[in-house]
Formats: sequence, C-alpha cells, structure tokens
Amino acid sequence: MSDRINLAHGDGGELAHKLIQDVFVEKFGHDKQAQLDAALLSLSSSEIAFTTDSFVVKPLFFPGGNIGKLAVAGTVNDLAVTGATPKFLTASFIIEEGFLIKDLRVIVESMYEEAEKAGVKIVAGDTKVVELGSADGLYINTTGIGVFESNQVRIQPENIEVGDSIIISGTIGDHGIAILTARGELGIKSDLCSDCATLNRMIADVVQVSEHVKMMRDPTRGGLATTLVEICEDFKVTVEIEESRVPIKNQVHGASDILGFDPLYLANEGKIIFIVAKEDEDKVLQAVRQHEEGKDACVIGKVTAKDKGQLFITTPIGSKRRLNRLAGTMLPRIC
Amino acid sequence: MSDRINLAHGDGGELAHKLIQDVFVEKFGHDKQAQLDAALLSLSSSEIAFTTDSFVVKPLFFPGGNIGKLAVAGTVNDLAVTGATPKFLTASFIIEEGFLIKDLRVIVESMYEEAEKAGVKIVAGDTKVVELGSADGLYINTTGIGVFESNQVRIQPENIEVGDSIIISGTIGDHGIAILTARGELGIKSDLCSDCATLNRMIADVVQVSEHVKMMRDPTRGGLATTLVEICEDFKVTVEIEESRVPIKNQVHGASDILGFDPLYLANEGKIIFIVAKEDEDKVLQAVRQHEEGKDACVIGKVTAKDKGQLFITTPIGSKRRLNRLAGTMLPRIC
Repeated sequence: MSDRINLAHGDGGELAHKLIQDVFVEKFGHDKQAQLDAALLSLSSSEIAFTTDSFVVKPLFFPGGNIGKLAVAGTVNDLAVTGATPKFLTASFIIEEGFLIKDLRVIVESMYEEAEKAGVKIVAGDTKVVELGSADGLYINTTGIGVFESNQVRIQPENIEVGDSIIISGTIGDHGIAILTARGELGIKSDLCSDCATLNRMIADVVQVSEHVKMMRDPTRGGLATTLVEICEDFKVTVEIEESRVPIKNQVHGASDILGFDPLYLANEGKIIFIVAKEDEDKVLQAVRQHEEGKDACVIGKVTAKDKGQLFITTPIGSKRRLNRLAGTMLPRIC
Repeated sequence: MSDRINLAHGDGGELAHKLIQDVFVEKFGHDKQAQLDAALLSLSSSEIAFTTDSFVVKPLFFPGGNIGKLAVAGTVNDLAVTGATPKFLTASFIIEEGFLIKDLRVIVESMYEEAEKAGVKIVAGDTKVVELGSADGLYINTTGIGVFESNQVRIQPENIEVGDSIIISGTIGDHGIAILTARGELGIKSDLCSDCATLNRMIADVVQVSEHVKMMRDPTRGGLATTLVEICEDFKVTVEIEESRVPIKNQVHGASDILGFDPLYLANEGKIIFIVAKEDEDKVLQAVRQHEEGKDACVIGKVTAKDKGQLFITTPIGSKRRLNRLAGTMLPRIC
C-alpha cells in the first residue's frame, strides 16, 4: 500500500477494500458480515440514548490526545450524561487526499484504546476521500448508542430544586488552551494537556452513590458558562456560581489573561457538570474524586431560584453579574 | 441572521444556538430536551441494525436530488437491505465558512421530506463550521438505527443456493452519470436524473411476498459489479450475470462510451440487488415493479456454484469473463 491516502481509497473499489481491511477491520475487529457496513446488534434494553458528533479539531494531534481519542470521548460522554450506559459507536472518516496512512493508523489506534477503556465497541464505519484542499487532513464523525437498563435510575432534571449543588469535576479550560498552544500561532508555550477523556465510568460511580443526580452535562464548546446557561434556559432554573470556587489551572489563567479569553467560555473535553441534591454533595464529590480525571472536583455554586432561567456569577468582592451564552467566535475548530 | 455561515455558527455559542433553532429544530421538530443533542428513544425491539455514512458528493445539488436527500436515502437503504425497518437517523453537518444559509435550508428541507417519505425520524444532530477552504461547501454524516421486529423474517445469506436468481431493481449507472454531467467538466449534456431514493418501502413489500429473500444490497460506490463481487467473496458463492439482461438507459450507455466508463462500475443511489429463490422470482419482481423506482426491475443472472466466490459475466456472443472489484478511481466524490 502507498503511504498516503489517494482518491481511490474512497471509491468503494479494491483500494478502499484494502484500506478498510488493513486499517479499520484489523483494529476494530468487526465480524465478517459487518465489514464496517451495517452492524447487527442485540441490545440489552430497548430504551436508548442516540447521539452524533463530527470532529474537526485543529491540529489533529495535540498534547493529551488526538482527533481519534477526542471523537470517542466526545460521543461516549454525550451518551453518559444522559444517564445511559454507552455501548456502541460508529466511526466515519472524511480524509483529504495525501493524508499519511501512518497517521491514520495512530488515530485509529487511539480510538480503539479509548473505546476499550470506556467499554464501548466501534461496530460500523465509513471512509470518504476528498481532493487535496477540500478538507483539512481528516474529519471524523462518531455516533453512539447508550442503553438504559430497566433497573437503572433515571436522571430527572424536572426535579431540580432550589438549593441543589452545582459540581464541576475538575479544572476548566484545559482543552481550549491546550489546542490553542498546540496551533503554535499565538507565540505562547505551555506544558498543559487537553483533558480529553471518556468519563462514563466516573458517571456510573456517581449515579451508583446518589439517587439525586438531577442533571449532568459535559461543558464542551462554549465552555462552562454556555452549558450552564443552556441548562438554566432549558429547565427554567436560576443558578449562581462563585468565581473564586471555579477551579482553573494557573497556565489557563495566565494564557487567558494574555490572550484575552474568559476561561468560563473555554472548551473542555473531559469535564462534567453535576446538579445534585445538597445532601448528596459529599457522596458525589467523593465518587468523582476517586477518579484521576475528577481529583479537582468541587462545588462551584447552587440553584437559587426556579422559573427565571438565568445564570449569575458572584465575584470575590461580592458583586454579581449575569452570564450569557458565548457570543462571537472565540476559538474555531476546538473539537 | 446573516445570509452566510460564519465560524461563530459552529462554536456552540449564541449564533450556533440560533442556527440550530432556526434551521434544524424548526424543520426536524425535536422535542425540547433533545435540542439536537442526545435523543432518548424507546425502540420497538432491542434487535437492531446500526450504520453510518458520510456524504461528500460534488456538486451538492444535482438532477434528481441534493446531498441532503442522498444522505437520508443512503443510510435508510443501508439499513433496509439488512432486513431491518429503518427508524431513526442522526444528521451531522460540517459546513464551510461562507456557505449560504438559504442553500442549507433547501438541503435540510430535502432531508426532512425524504425522511418523511421513508417513515424515519431525524432525532439528533451536530453542526461544525470550518474555515473557507477547509471543506468543499458542505459534508453531511447520517447514522441510522433500524429495528428487527420479533415477527420479522430475517434475511439469510447463508441459505444462498445454486440456482437462486439475481434481481436488480432497475437501470444501473444513473447516479454516476447524472453527477458527472452535473459537474459540467466533461462537456456532455443530459437530462438524466440521479436515481437517489429511499427504497425501504419497496424492500418491505418484497420481504412481505417472499420468505426466500437470501440477500439484499444497494450497489452504490463501486457499482453493480463491485457489490456483487463483495457478496460472492463474503458468502463464497459464484454468480453469473448476463450482460444483455442488465438494464441500462441509453443516455448512460452513450455517456459511458464517450467517457470510457463501464456502467457496471458506476454508482447507484436508488437500486437494490436481490438474491432470491428461483421459485419466488416472479413474486419478487411483481412487488418491486409496483413501485415507481422499481418499474425496470429484472432478473440479470443466477448463482451458479458455491465455494468459489467469483463473479462472471456472459456477453451476447456467449463469451464469459470474470469481473473484479473496481480498481483505481473512476469517479471521486460520487456520494
């Protein structure tokens, strides 16, 4: 096989067949019949969550991960926050002509590893090739199915109450700043890694210890603030967070100051926001912190009212301001 | 809203929210909670088919359809040929900066219409925006779930027998030539339309009238020949088709002659290959032909041996040659 992808790898013929056999089937190990086309599956429950995400992150490789790891983690986490157990993924590749097959192998290997770690299977896929200049290396779509077992506790956002605690599973903005510095366009250097990780096992532990998890969300594009605004609007609750309690790494603080970004709006790819009953706060924190990815978890605020649907932040000197969705482009192609 | 997509439409903030509300939720009508993120679904069976496809067709609009219609038809058909009933789709968009929002609306409208026609629901989605020059207008991924009801007859390729009939649901190569002429690069004109269509209803009628449908496949990329070669190899059967019986429109014949293409390798987006027991041939033909998309259906050959896994074609003068997979690139970005 040549060392680069060419257009014939995407036309469904002999070369496409070889690529699929050598790179994808080799790694993902589909059974004969599936051949990366439709997979026939027997689910353990007919109650499911179904979600899709396309990944266009730039650069493809960054400290803490690559587009493949991100594509698996992103979709697994989107399923897990619904309360479902992630089970199956599809993976679809749009590859630019000339892309190095060895890079594709590294990316596919990362997908496999992250899927193994999360306990999910990549069961079907697709490969398209576009001409040089019609994509930026590689884009990946992953789509996932999670199941709700019959005995599983359901997340009940309609039960959010005044006094409920807002917990974040760790420091915010790591992914955003890691990607920015990896682009090397901004003249800053940092050893910061993306937080990109599958968190379904952490989430499973949380719902195991608490029956009062009202809401879970992964604050990716748009960051912590945008995700909280969405929760507030969708469920008509008012949330107040304390600026001083939001965990932010020094490097993220520093880079944000220099570049003029607000960490509250920087993307995360390995963080979860939990809204839980006040009395379960400690149990949940403990469950989260026992995971390496959750060691910096803390309570950052609480639900202060119903009906309004607004997000507020209080500063250390006691002033309070309302936060809105991210407006305008802060960082394109962050995921 | 501006009339063109800009990078901020893809960053998860205010503009992205508006785009999703105005263009996608407006059309697909997701419930509040889904908001084009994870959908929570109750399936009628836990036995499912799961498939994914990314679409990079060029041009985006062509006689007989556009990338949106194609994206729905392609995935619905991939599900239907497994014998499953297509139920739910996700739709994920990678949009190039500067893309016209009115074109996006037309494409989304086509997706909605084709999904309605097929009886499937688009339940979740994603939108990413890349810089000008990092994509070619728009790429769409659709991923689908089909269910196998408990009383449903399963397709049993392991029961393929010598003497089984090979049926094609209509003329071949229409999509390939329609796309080629739509590109306008080859100096040929034609009123030929792509055959792009969802065929799950036709397939449902076929499995209704015959319990001896051994195999169904949609011969897309790589065309009739490549798809048959794959079937032969996967199930170790030898198939012989008669050149004179393969239905091909005059325009497809003519354009192929001029351009040096073999219609057997041209893509189709609205055709099904059925392998059925000889005795059910007429019943199946009748069921297919009652659909507008199947009016030109005919028997093109038969299974002549087991164990070999080869495809042969016999010419009108009686010579016989072996056909292999498509080798090299015939038509990039055909779907």
